[in-house]
Amino acid sequence: MKRIIIINGPNLNLLGTREPEVYGNQSFENYLQSLKEKFPAEQLEYFQNNVEGEIINKLHEAGMDAHGIIINPGGYSHTSVAIADAIEAIKTPVVEVHISNVHAREDFRQVLLTARNCRGVISGLGLMGYEAAIRYLLKNYE
Amino acid sequence: MKRIIIINGPNLNLLGTREPEVYGNQSFENYLQSLKEKFPAEQLEYFQNNVEGEIINKLHEAGMDAHGIIINPGGYSHTSVAIADAIEAIKTPVVEVHISNVHAREDFRQVLLTARNCRGVISGLGLMGYEAAIRYLLKNYE
Amino acid sequence: MKRIIIINGPNLNLLGTREPEVYGNQSFENYLQSLKEKFPAEQLEYFQNNVEGEIINKLHEAGMDAHGIIINPGGYSHTSVAIADAIEAIKTPVVEVHISNVHAREDFRQVLLTARNCRGVISGLGLMGYEAAIRYLLKNYE
Amino acid sequence: MKRIIIINGPNLNLLGTREPEVYGNQSFENYLQSLKEKFPAEQLEYFQNNVEGEIINKLHEAGMDAHGIIINPGGYSHTSVAIADAIEAIKTPVVEVHISNVHAREDFRQVLLTARNCRGVISGLGLMGYEAAIRYLLKNYE
Amino acid sequence: MKRIIIINGPNLNLLGTREPEVYGNQSFENYLQSLKEKFPAEQLEYFQNNVEGEIINKLHEAGMDAHGIIINPGGYSHTSVAIADAIEAIKTPVVEVHISNVHAREDFRQVLLTARNCRGVISGLGLMGYEAAIRYLLKNYE
Amino acid sequence: MKRIIIINGPNLNLLGTREPEVYGNQSFENYLQSLKEKFPAEQLEYFQNNVEGEIINKLHEAGMDAHGIIINPGGYSHTSVAIADAIEAIKTPVVEVHISNVHAREDFRQVLLTARNCRGVISGLGLMGYEAAIRYLLKNYE
Amino acid sequence: MKRIIIINGPNLNLLGTREPEVYGNQSFENYLQSLKEKFPAEQLEYFQNNVEGEIINKLHEAGMDAHGIIINPGGYSHTSVAIADAIEAIKTPVVEVHISNVHAREDFRQVLLTARNCRGVISGLGLMGYEAAIRYLLKNYE
Amino acid sequence: MKRIIIINGPNLNLLGTREPEVYGNQSFENYLQSLKEKFPAEQLEYFQNNVEGEIINKLHEAGMDAHGIIINPGGYSHTSVAIADAIEAIKTPVVEVHISNVHAREDFRQVLLTARNCRGVISGLGLMGYEAAIRYLLKNYE
Amino acid sequence: MKRIIIINGPNLNLLGTREPEVYGNQSFENYLQSLKEKFPAEQLEYFQNNVEGEIINKLHEAGMDAHGIIINPGGYSHTSVAIADAIEAIKTPVVEVHISNVHAREDFRQVLLTARNCRGVISGLGLMGYEAAIRYLLKNYE
Amino acid sequence: MKRIIIINGPNLNLLGTREPEVYGNQSFENYLQSLKEKFPAEQLEYFQNNVEGEIINKLHEAGMDAHGIIINPGGYSHTSVAIADAIEAIKTPVVEVHISNVHAREDFRQVLLTARNCRGVISGLGLMGYEAAIRYLLKNYE
Amino acid sequence: MKRIIIINGPNLNLLGTREPEVYGNQSFENYLQSLKEKFPAEQLEYFQNNVEGEIINKLHEAGMDAHGIIINPGGYSHTSVAIADAIEAIKTPVVEVHISNVHAREDFRQVLLTARNCRGVISGLGLMGYEAAIRYLLKNYE
Amino acid sequence: MKRIIIINGPNLNLLGTREPEVYGNQSFENYLQSLKEKFPAEQLEYFQNNVEGEIINKLHEAGMDAHGIIINPGGYSHTSVAIADAIEAIKTPVVEVHISNVHAREDFRQVLLTARNCRGVISGLGLMGYEAAIRYLLKNYE
Repeated sequence: MKRIIIINGPNLNLLGTREPEVYGNQSFENYLQSLKEKFPAEQLEYFQNNVEGEIINKLHEAGMDAHGIIINPGGYSHTSVAIADAIEAIKTPVVEVHISNVHAREDFRQVLLTARNCRGVISGLGLMGYEAAIRYLLKNYE
Repeated sequence: MKRIIIINGPNLNLLGTREPEVYGNQSFENYLQSLKEKFPAEQLEYFQNNVEGEIINKLHEAGMDAHGIIINPGGYSHTSVAIADAIEAIKTPVVEVHISNVHAREDFRQVLLTARNCRGVISGLGLMGYEAAIRYLLKNYE
Repeated sequence: MKRIIIINGPNLNLLGTREPEVYGNQSFENYLQSLKEKFPAEQLEYFQNNVEGEIINKLHEAGMDAHGIIINPGGYSHTSVAIADAIEAIKTPVVEVHISNVHAREDFRQVLLTARNCRGVISGLGLMGYEAAIRYLLKNYE
Repeated sequence: MKRIIIINGPNLNLLGTREPEVYGNQSFENYLQSLKEKFPAEQLEYFQNNVEGEIINKLHEAGMDAHGIIINPGGYSHTSVAIADAIEAIKTPVVEVHISNVHAREDFRQVLLTARNCRGVISGLGLMGYEAAIRYLLKNYE
Repeated sequence: MKRIIIINGPNLNLLGTREPEVYGNQSFENYLQSLKEKFPAEQLEYFQNNVEGEIINKLHEAGMDAHGIIINPGGYSHTSVAIADAIEAIKTPVVEVHISNVHAREDFRQVLLTARNCRGVISGLGLMGYEAAIRYLLKNYE
Repeated sequence: MKRIIIINGPNLNLLGTREPEVYGNQSFENYLQSLKEKFPAEQLEYFQNNVEGEIINKLHEAGMDAHGIIINPGGYSHTSVAIADAIEAIKTPVVEVHISNVHAREDFRQVLLTARNCRGVISGLGLMGYEAAIRYLLKNYE
Repeated sequence: MKRIIIINGPNLNLLGTREPEVYGNQSFENYLQSLKEKFPAEQLEYFQNNVEGEIINKLHEAGMDAHGIIINPGGYSHTSVAIADAIEAIKTPVVEVHISNVHAREDFRQVLLTARNCRGVISGLGLMGYEAAIRYLLKNYE
Repeated sequence: MKRIIIINGPNLNLLGTREPEVYGNQSFENYLQSLKEKFPAEQLEYFQNNVEGEIINKLHEAGMDAHGIIINPGGYSHTSVAIADAIEAIKTPVVEVHISNVHAREDFRQVLLTARNCRGVISGLGLMGYEAAIRYLLKNYE
Repeated sequence: MKRIIIINGPNLNLLGTREPEVYGNQSFENYLQSLKEKFPAEQLEYFQNNVEGEIINKLHEAGMDAHGIIINPGGYSHTSVAIADAIEAIKTPVVEVHISNVHAREDFRQVLLTARNCRGVISGLGLMGYEAAIRYLLKNYE
Repeated sequence: MKRIIIINGPNLNLLGTREPEVYGNQSFENYLQSLKEKFPAEQLEYFQNNVEGEIINKLHEAGMDAHGIIINPGGYSHTSVAIADAIEAIKTPVVEVHISNVHAREDFRQVLLTARNCRGVISGLGLMGYEAAIRYLLKNYE
Repeated sequence: MKRIIIINGPNLNLLGTREPEVYGNQSFENYLQSLKEKFPAEQLEYFQNNVEGEIINKLHEAGMDAHGIIINPGGYSHTSVAIADAIEAIKTPVVEVHISNVHAREDFRQVLLTARNCRGVISGLGLMGYEAAIRYLLKNYE
Repeated sequence: MKRIIIINGPNLNLLGTREPEVYGNQSFENYLQSLKEKFPAEQLEYFQNNVEGEIINKLHEAGMDAHGIIINPGGYSHTSVAIADAIEAIKTPVVEVHISNVHAREDFRQVLLTARNCRGVISGLGLMGYEAAIRYLLKNYE
């Protein structure tokens, strides 16, 4: 069975309580439940951490036993050469997801360092972006 | 019934014959057929043009009667203030799709002008990006 | 009799219906009528097109028989070396008009390529900018 | 009655004697006379100063009793955050005028700091720019 | 009672032993004692960590129960979009403090990413900067 | 007795009347009164001027007889090499104060030229910034 | 027999009438005649268009049946990612020709986007550049 | 006896398994063994961590009891002001090592922030770089 | 008789008292005396002002009756488009003098705006620069 | 008789032995023979040198007795203001030739300093570029 | 037997006499003696030249008969595309050595052009850098 | 007796024959004669060379026995880190001279690399600049 790991970066643990008019009032854990109803629950693993290095640790681990990785590196998307290197080092396909459309935001968010090494990027589709990424990974990497 | 228009920009008419090792050997018309099997065929309209101004014309027209627009502006993504303005001027929600991951390509492709005014951007998921965009538009704009 | 041609670029066909709180609810055709009441109607010709190359075609044509040209290149103002070259190639005096004040807008609108080759630029005076340009052309080029 | 104040910045006191082949041989005082024949003379006040801070002082004063301000900040257009702040601080509408077309000149003249906070900018129409600005202010701010 | 949390970032644990001619020979813990004599001791909480993500964790936590936050992000001030996002996400007012005057230092310290989302910044006043920040928070957020 | 001079630059004379929702409706003179109640009134001198060169003149004068200087150079903070040179030339310690948080504003305000030569900078604490600067100067330069 | 297509971009239709002191008074059609005397006339096809997208259309068409393409993209040389993509997409060898020496002209002409994907570039040799390009294509691609 | 600590940053734990055609199939632990045969084993301590802050923690600790430090900050070399500050804060001499030649890689790797504060940098000599660094530290800092 | 005017800009009134180890302990007035012994005293006029606009005023005045101007614009050298415009507007030859070598100083001093419109620039020769400028003006402009 | 001098810059002496798959296995001396068969042999002079200053020496000499110069400045094309000045100083027409298409190569090769002062540039046509340059010089400068 | 050539660029002939407090008082010739005691003397050849082109000449020559090259291009490291091209053209492995740590020096030394084409770079280890380079070359290229 | 060496860089050997309307028709040798009449002839030595490395050689030599050096590095002023390093390495005072005003010329001439390490720079005073430099060196370095 194909295992897919969702890795959420800094500040995404606040989802649902922070700026609900922008991000909605659904926590990611809550959304994860709805995902597990659409896809076999045991396929999906979820990991969130605010520490750049822990995200790298998780990528290494996932690089060994997952079939696909979905990453939302949050603010690290724009600054982390180290996460970008980790994505490049592992063989597992990675899709980057952003809940908001980063291209409509500040100048410093126009640099996407980690996206360079991903298969693709989905930005601005809200939480649906994660679902689209799962479909893509399930279909393309068997 | 919700109508969705797919607008493909310059060089996308070559899909299937051009660099098949990169883009596959499926033409967009062909792929469109498979889409019409998944979604009600009469919902989907397809338009391709290499002329920047004709894409603007189509956006204006679509802005009046479609419920959602999927645009792949090709090379104009990086240079066209005029298409970006057209997307901003109409009210219809627009999702931008790129077949390849533009973030992994040349420096001049890192500027995404039209994406600023779209709801979201899907890049690098191949032709599946169009399907993800349709799902998003059907779900979010009723 | 002096003939003056007004050339409006991309998206200006939407004037009156698009963002009326910003641009007012008067279409350009409508405004043109009021202009023709102030100035001899047969002096004024109007042309709008969303295609960069058609604007160049019109500039060439106008370069042969008009006494003055008013151009609002819309988004092409910031990106079109080709239109700038066309303005330089013809001898007819050209005045560039922008309805909104481009200097108060996004960074990418601070580059004015076509304005380099015009006699002058009027920006931010709303539709009155066209009238001021007509007065200038009528007075200075007899 | 509507009062309009014209504020000319550095080096504009030389008008008429300096580079007459470019700027003509009419002094601004002289041109002011012709303006006063077209518009009620008591409506127009004229102020010229080479000191950045005195221009700010005048803007503050005009901000209290004028209905409109026309400013030609000369070289300060490209360097003065302080004048830009003054224009923003007062409520009176301001139109910026440049006698020559600054967009056709040196690179350092392409930065227009004060224009950000004006209603509009007229550049390159020679002294007629002032007249167009008066018309605009009289019509739009009653 | 109003609670204020002081968050010190990387290398600030070395205070007092490192370059004493620059930073003095007082450790922050020591200075904290003198602060607790001036302000009710139970109001002040102190946290220091060299890990970017732990600073984010603390900001989230403080965002739930403190009335004010003082942050000295050290080197992360210039590079951390993730900490800047955390400050934006929480509602608690944050004041940024730098012991030395960062504006008198290297070029790469002139970019202040986290300061964008703070209420204010105090830089170069030595340890007194923390005291000034406390006074500000106590007075303005009751 | 220690004398401290507060030097306010361009547009700060408008404080209290300009954008009261942002800057409050207290004039600086008014605020000065409250400062003189907290600190010995004869210690504080106040100077405001919109002319860059007059601010330099005052810095030279203060450099000879004051014990500390507080400067809010307004818009000149971002453009004046000459004021920065004056601060460097005199020996008196100088603290720069900004009422709003300049780091949260436009790009051109991110260049802080005068701050390079000050002891420290307080930005965004409102009028309280002046008080914090006084405390710092009184404590550190006896 | 080898077929070679010459594609001229915007404003090149004015050749011979525009700035004859620079470009000479020979129209391109006229020059084409002299070319056809040197090379088998039926080998040479000529196409001129001011519309970016029509140039792309012609490149696609030529990509299917010509043995070589000579392109002078005029102002689009410096701005058109879309034409550059078209050149890359087709297999036919392309040589770019500029009549004037673009390296001796304005800064914005130093960016050569379309030239990246051509076999070579000839700039500044006047109309002879076309002849040199024909010789190259005839010799190298049999 | 002189103690030398080797600090390896993010992704260097993958050495030997990742891209063996580039980095060889020797793990760092393995290589460390061969080092310990050349130099007294008890002199060498090894530390690897993917967390930026933990590298800072180790630098602080090493700053107190080691005679020399060898650091390979991996991706943090190009982004971490905080690690650069830590190197500057401690007195122990530090040599930076990169296995590959960073000067032959991507643009964003040409910024070397941490190297500013090191005694020297060895880049591109493969694992031999560590050995050269040990020799240097043993010879120069007794 | 040829008249030469020396115009010193901001902070040069401090010469002799400010940083004497750098600039010597001679005031400019004092140095002027020694100049008047070398050259006919009535030929030399001296003017110093810290106000940018007053320097412009003096340039205009000198432009009418002096044979040569020596200017040391101090900090305005790097920021004043307005002074540069004044130098261009008058016909009198101008030589710019800097006491220290500006090319060996901060980055922001590498932009020399006013020097563009001067005949020449002497930088770093100390007060002797003024003497060299006088010799040049006396010899070349009779 | 018209004399034409070919000046080849650094590394072009390696032609034929270096990267033959790119540059072919023909040395320039060899190619020169074939040129001398097409054009009168006594017309062509050849000079190669790796020293920037010797290329300048040769340009000066050629400037006195040749009718045309063909230069391939190799790596100096992108860095040598001194060679560019030499080309400007002499009157002889100069054509710059590059064997490979520099526009398709590294970023630092997009700056063409010497080309500014040449009549034209031929890049990417292989050794045929020299022949095209000779034809141009023979035809245009009699 | 393996031959290694050391090529020192501009100003390195001054070693030992120039700034001895920085570079020590050992000449390179002197140091070379100590190297020849460690490694078979006949293996090492030494060349120093201040002329860019002579360094290229030597690289070409060494490219034919040496097994390894150590180059310290001095100031040419940051400006010479021509030397970089020479290193790329030859097959012999090259290691670049800098005596001081260039990353701790001026901005213009952060561009390392020649290093792009070397196997590795050693910077800041003093003269020991040459020894480390020899060891590397002897070990890796047999 | 004090010896002064004048070092002229590339293209200055053409003085007198090249663009006489700009540079006059006096060769430097000729001008040198007039200098030797003003100053003891045996004090002055003259050297001209187009080779960057020979200029460095001469600087080294002059650094050992001259009391002052005047250098006009021509085009190398803007590109030569190596000459700048040589000037820094020797102890002899160096004055840089440019015949034309480089600040009034192209953008790439605004970077003055060698001037950083000189005592001063004289630019735009024509050949008189050399005389001013001699006076300065004779007076200041006895």
